[in-house]
Amino acid sequence: MVGGGPGAFIGAVHRMAAALDGEYELVAGAFSSDPSKSAQTGGALGLDPSRVYDSYQRMAEGEASLPPDERLEIVSVVTPNHLHHPVAKSFLEAGFHVVCDKPLTNTVEDAEELCRLAAGGKLVFAVTYNYTAYPMVKEARARVLAGELGSLRKVVVEYSQGWLRTLLEAEGQKQAEWRGDPTRAGASSALGDIGSHAHDLLRYVTGLETVRLFADLGTVVAGRRLEDDATVLLELDGGTRGVLLTSQISTGERNHLRLRVYGSEAALDWCQEQPDRLRLVAPDGTETILHRGGSSLSEAASSATRLPGGHPEGFIEAFANVYRSVARAVRGGQSGQTHDFPTVQDGARGVHFIHRAVESHRGGGWVDAAYTPPPGGAR
Amino acid sequence: MVGGGPGAFIGAVHRMAAALDGEYELVAGAFSSDPSKSAQTGGALGLDPSRVYDSYQRMAEGEASLPPDERLEIVSVVTPNHLHHPVAKSFLEAGFHVVCDKPLTNTVEDAEELCRLAAGGKLVFAVTYNYTAYPMVKEARARVLAGELGSLRKVVVEYSQGWLRTLLEAEGQKQAEWRGDPTRAGASSALGDIGSHAHDLLRYVTGLETVRLFADLGTVVAGRRLEDDATVLLELDGGTRGVLLTSQISTGERNHLRLRVYGSEAALDWCQEQPDRLRLVAPDGTETILHRGGSSLSEAASSATRLPGGHPEGFIEAFANVYRSVARAVRGGQSGQTHDFPTVQDGARGVHFIHRAVESHRGGGWVDAAYTPPPGGAR
Amino acid sequence: MVGGGPGAFIGAVHRMAAALDGEYELVAGAFSSDPSKSAQTGGALGLDPSRVYDSYQRMAEGEASLPPDERLEIVSVVTPNHLHHPVAKSFLEAGFHVVCDKPLTNTVEDAEELCRLAAGGKLVFAVTYNYTAYPMVKEARARVLAGELGSLRKVVVEYSQGWLRTLLEAEGQKQAEWRGDPTRAGASSALGDIGSHAHDLLRYVTGLETVRLFADLGTVVAGRRLEDDATVLLELDGGTRGVLLTSQISTGERNHLRLRVYGSEAALDWCQEQPDRLRLVAPDGTETILHRGGSSLSEAASSATRLPGGHPEGFIEAFANVYRSVARAVRGGQSGQTHDFPTVQDGARGVHFIHRAVESHRGGGWVDAAYTPPPGGAR
Amino acid sequence: MVGGGPGAFIGAVHRMAAALDGEYELVAGAFSSDPSKSAQTGGALGLDPSRVYDSYQRMAEGEASLPPDERLEIVSVVTPNHLHHPVAKSFLEAGFHVVCDKPLTNTVEDAEELCRLAAGGKLVFAVTYNYTAYPMVKEARARVLAGELGSLRKVVVEYSQGWLRTLLEAEGQKQAEWRGDPTRAGASSALGDIGSHAHDLLRYVTGLETVRLFADLGTVVAGRRLEDDATVLLELDGGTRGVLLTSQISTGERNHLRLRVYGSEAALDWCQEQPDRLRLVAPDGTETILHRGGSSLSEAASSATRLPGGHPEGFIEAFANVYRSVARAVRGGQSGQTHDFPTVQDGARGVHFIHRAVESHRGGGWVDAAYTPPPGGAR
Repeated sequence: MVGGGPGAFIGAVHRMAAALDGEYELVAGAFSSDPSKSAQTGGALGLDPSRVYDSYQRMAEGEASLPPDERLEIVSVVTPNHLHHPVAKSFLEAGFHVVCDKPLTNTVEDAEELCRLAAGGKLVFAVTYNYTAYPMVKEARARVLAGELGSLRKVVVEYSQGWLRTLLEAEGQKQAEWRGDPTRAGASSALGDIGSHAHDLLRYVTGLETVRLFADLGTVVAGRRLEDDATVLLELDGGTRGVLLTSQISTGERNHLRLRVYGSEAALDWCQEQPDRLRLVAPDGTETILHRGGSSLSEAASSATRLPGGHPEGFIEAFANVYRSVARAVRGGQSGQTHDFPTVQDGARGVHFIHRAVESHRGGGWVDAAYTPPPGGAR
Repeated sequence: MVGGGPGAFIGAVHRMAAALDGEYELVAGAFSSDPSKSAQTGGALGLDPSRVYDSYQRMAEGEASLPPDERLEIVSVVTPNHLHHPVAKSFLEAGFHVVCDKPLTNTVEDAEELCRLAAGGKLVFAVTYNYTAYPMVKEARARVLAGELGSLRKVVVEYSQGWLRTLLEAEGQKQAEWRGDPTRAGASSALGDIGSHAHDLLRYVTGLETVRLFADLGTVVAGRRLEDDATVLLELDGGTRGVLLTSQISTGERNHLRLRVYGSEAALDWCQEQPDRLRLVAPDGTETILHRGGSSLSEAASSATRLPGGHPEGFIEAFANVYRSVARAVRGGQSGQTHDFPTVQDGARGVHFIHRAVESHRGGGWVDAAYTPPPGGAR
Repeated sequence: MVGGGPGAFIGAVHRMAAALDGEYELVAGAFSSDPSKSAQTGGALGLDPSRVYDSYQRMAEGEASLPPDERLEIVSVVTPNHLHHPVAKSFLEAGFHVVCDKPLTNTVEDAEELCRLAAGGKLVFAVTYNYTAYPMVKEARARVLAGELGSLRKVVVEYSQGWLRTLLEAEGQKQAEWRGDPTRAGASSALGDIGSHAHDLLRYVTGLETVRLFADLGTVVAGRRLEDDATVLLELDGGTRGVLLTSQISTGERNHLRLRVYGSEAALDWCQEQPDRLRLVAPDGTETILHRGGSSLSEAASSATRLPGGHPEGFIEAFANVYRSVARAVRGGQSGQTHDFPTVQDGARGVHFIHRAVESHRGGGWVDAAYTPPPGGAR
Repeated sequence: MVGGGPGAFIGAVHRMAAALDGEYELVAGAFSSDPSKSAQTGGALGLDPSRVYDSYQRMAEGEASLPPDERLEIVSVVTPNHLHHPVAKSFLEAGFHVVCDKPLTNTVEDAEELCRLAAGGKLVFAVTYNYTAYPMVKEARARVLAGELGSLRKVVVEYSQGWLRTLLEAEGQKQAEWRGDPTRAGASSALGDIGSHAHDLLRYVTGLETVRLFADLGTVVAGRRLEDDATVLLELDGGTRGVLLTSQISTGERNHLRLRVYGSEAALDWCQEQPDRLRLVAPDGTETILHRGGSSLSEAASSATRLPGGHPEGFIEAFANVYRSVARAVRGGQSGQTHDFPTVQDGARGVHFIHRAVESHRGGGWVDAAYTPPPGGAR
């Protein structure tokens, strides 16, 4: 693991997600750019001190120098955004598989480079767009693919939070601090941090890509250097209309990621804060609420679940689904099977989307947004 | 009553709303442009045949010719949109108070003429933006005015329906037929029919007007002549950000009007399909759900309620609040009191908003939307 | 109308419910045992003073003495419980149809006498178990009758309120005062006032009667003279298990009437505070939520609705359904049709149930509860 | 681990719960009474074959014979009910700490013996009443203890499932098969399997014990040998009224465990299927919905949470809280601190409750239910 030292949030999530199914063992880490903090975290996690590194460069080198059956197999990159590219590049070049947080990189060029490196090395590269790993999101995708909604007409996706309603980055809060700094967060805050999840969720469930977009970005909290609220109007493949709302200043919203898809024959509605449910709506308004664990669910949903219905699964379990699917891809045991996790190409699409939205906002008009990333890694 | 003959929907609602509190008696009508249908409806309602008219013109004349204590006091205009202006104008000119359905008129000029006529005659003129008459909408407004949300930062208002997901207007459905015809519905379908309610609700609760807007209108169902889906981005007074979504093709949505207001200190959320509730949200996500009939509600909400909490009130009761408030204004008994109903000026603002949105869409860019209508009628 | 003077709650509900559809006109009343209050209410309602009476006896006599086409057709009895019997009896003997609040009477003998009088006079007699008049309750009944739930196995019905969590009757609150007085409320408070609604709702939806019961009554608030909380275990026809919970001291509950029916093939769930919905549940937990106005609903539900889906209907509309159905029965126009309102026999069954529950509690054991009331009135 | 072989459900839950926080390592097991199945499970879990045992007796002996720093520290007992006692007894006698599934034993005598053995050996003994480990249940308890509800007046607790609506035990379903067999499940099915969770949840949140009870047990599905539905009326300490409903034949219910507590000043409501929420209700019906992760929560709730609000936690996380708390007790590092997990005494209380309910049902009347178990183990 690179990143995930003291004060980090997502590193611990990655560790719990990897531990849940007993398919991973944490063996090495460069947990912080501060060597003493890295050592502190490594110690707390019970690692062999010889495999707790001062920097990601030394870790890539050090692990690569170990005998093949002793070195790490895969690295988790859980640093601030600007380090995703150099860290992932180092490990790819050293021949390791990668799990990387989103957004993949801060520029499209960097993202494309990672695609090429993964493809060249035939390495697995997953981007933790973890929300698509919820069983009922997989069910939603299966229902759309099966044609249950008819032709898709309108999509509304929203990802709203309220935790940045004050200038938290000025108060020393670590999570807010780097997210509000363009040199580390990149060209965007709200869009990059959470809007990219919404964009990926929309793509995953509908199978549609964005053709054109119009974006309106706003910085609501005085003193902030990046946008903290954005609305993006989308023209999707085939003319399907889309609206993406994202915000970090929507006071009181905890982690409100919701997707609604309206088709000619039915609609669906999924909300991350009640992830075990999927709502389908018939033209006359009759609702069918499917629950994780139900007997009529798709193979995709059923195989992503661990407990019977009524025994709630949550964020960690979904995150663990990414890790479990990646483990299977790395082992390659089920040859010929396509594994279900977000790839480096999905990551590149997300980076491209963020950049086109920023450009639309600057120009005040619609912009083209069609894009095809280079081929990516093993799957 | 003018309009409200066989096959109409809203006419019956007006009649039930007026009857509920015993403050109105239906005494005359021109229920259809087809005299036999008008007579049929008048008969079914038990009216004196001499006061069931063949046309609104004859009704305005006929009633004006009766002795003051026998003639009608106020007329309800429940026709298709294009007739609102000529009908209302006729009755205003004959000295009658008016309750008129929305959108007020099909042009801004017509709307302004009605403002001037009402003002000149010191007549009461209400527009049935009925959704602002729900008690918990009044509570929302009171809380915003009292500063409980802090400064307002973002508003999301949505009014989605799915009933026009097919080309219903080609199948002879009366409600769909005139709404899809530009010569009767006006320049807009979704925005005019329901978007204008969303716009009025936003204005009522927040007290904010639109300064600039960007609109994206779409016609999703092939063969339709007006837009059936629209998203409008709003810049409100003081820079508050707004998003208005409206749709008639959102399959499965019945009558989904929902308003969320995010302030610096708290947020509120009201949904028309559960009208007796108002949700307030604190920065840490703790929700407070206020219910109609609660002991801590504002005078505005309490005086708009008829039943104790837990005894659901609905659409007709809210509609009846408009009628009850208008009755009090007509009687003028509580002199000095400002009555709480949507006025002809609110109606003119709605018409202006629709037209600016259409213009933004045609131009593909932001347009100014500031507007002040002429003075209106008695209140 | 008899009762419904100053300070009353249910009288105004009856008046609004009767007014809604334009099928009733209020022409006479004895609104209070205090003649000046009766006159005051009559005046406020705009009645002819000659038809505002000092007592129900004088009203029955006075109206009976009018020519048939001038006298009232039907009387609404909205007094405290102990007066239901003498008032209803007077009007039945004078040949008038009756709408009476629940519980019907304070003794089984009195209830049976009213059955016989209504039957003898071929008069319509409705008891305002208003909750069974909600469209989605009618839908629930239709689904059960159609066998969608399979054989019925368990029923849980709950009616909880919290308004008597303090000794409100000692504070001069009129509604609490008579309900807490055994000489007026009868042998029971919670069971009589609201438990009887729960019992009737269970009967209406399932079609099952109680064979045996065990009741546990409690008086939670010190100083109260009747029970304010009760649980009744039921053995229903065919061995179906039932639980009835009722309470007036469940702090924070507004008007929580909820029915769940579990069958061998599916379950249903209806809650009065969201009356436009009916939840059906499949064995694997998949929920189907039907909404009033949906296209697949039964004739019974559809004919009891006034507005399209998404336009909420509430308590008054359901109450008005009782009045509308009674009006049709009185007019007899649709001969051969069975009208759908709760009858004097339903009222008698409710009174019997209350008394058996009180006896079970006193004895501390199960008691037989099978019962068939005498034939009732016209329908 | 003892039990948890092929086809088992709860064994895997225990393993994931123990793995989540990295505080446990699975080192030995007797996973099935069938040696080949035990070996198969041990192999799949990557255990050293020398520590995969044919029987729990051999495991207890074998592990005890290892050097202290190599043997297991604590055993998880996840067998069918009738084996809880002999297995736990063996390991206690061998000096090991124990985590045991519920119900603790099939007789009160056996439960008391385990209490004494744990006390004698100063061993930690936890019973996985896992539902009390949810953060918002801890919050509920904290609020009750702080007096926010005033004096407690009524408690309604329900645990309903529908999975046994058919005679599943006759179809070879392993989970159903032993639960329906009195020689393995004990004197009760619904009460023992899930009603005991409801009873423990009530005790944990309210701090109240049962003084008297009346139980009505029913066997709804023909051919079943134990009850599959039960209602128990409770008199709690100080006269608080309680109702406990439990069922395995409530078609469509997945895992519906819900607790409502009504106090003199407020009420609370928690439902296991939405475990991150806690609803508080004021006398006027105003609801406050607290969410896990909120800033105003108690230390007990906050320390039991791993993720920020809006990132759902579920069943496994709550289960893991038991394991984490037990680990801390075993290590004893935080001396003087009372650890928050259900003890062997809580288990004994549950067994006693089940037995008294069965006796009440047999006698058809109320029975005394006061009980104090012997002192238990280390905490």
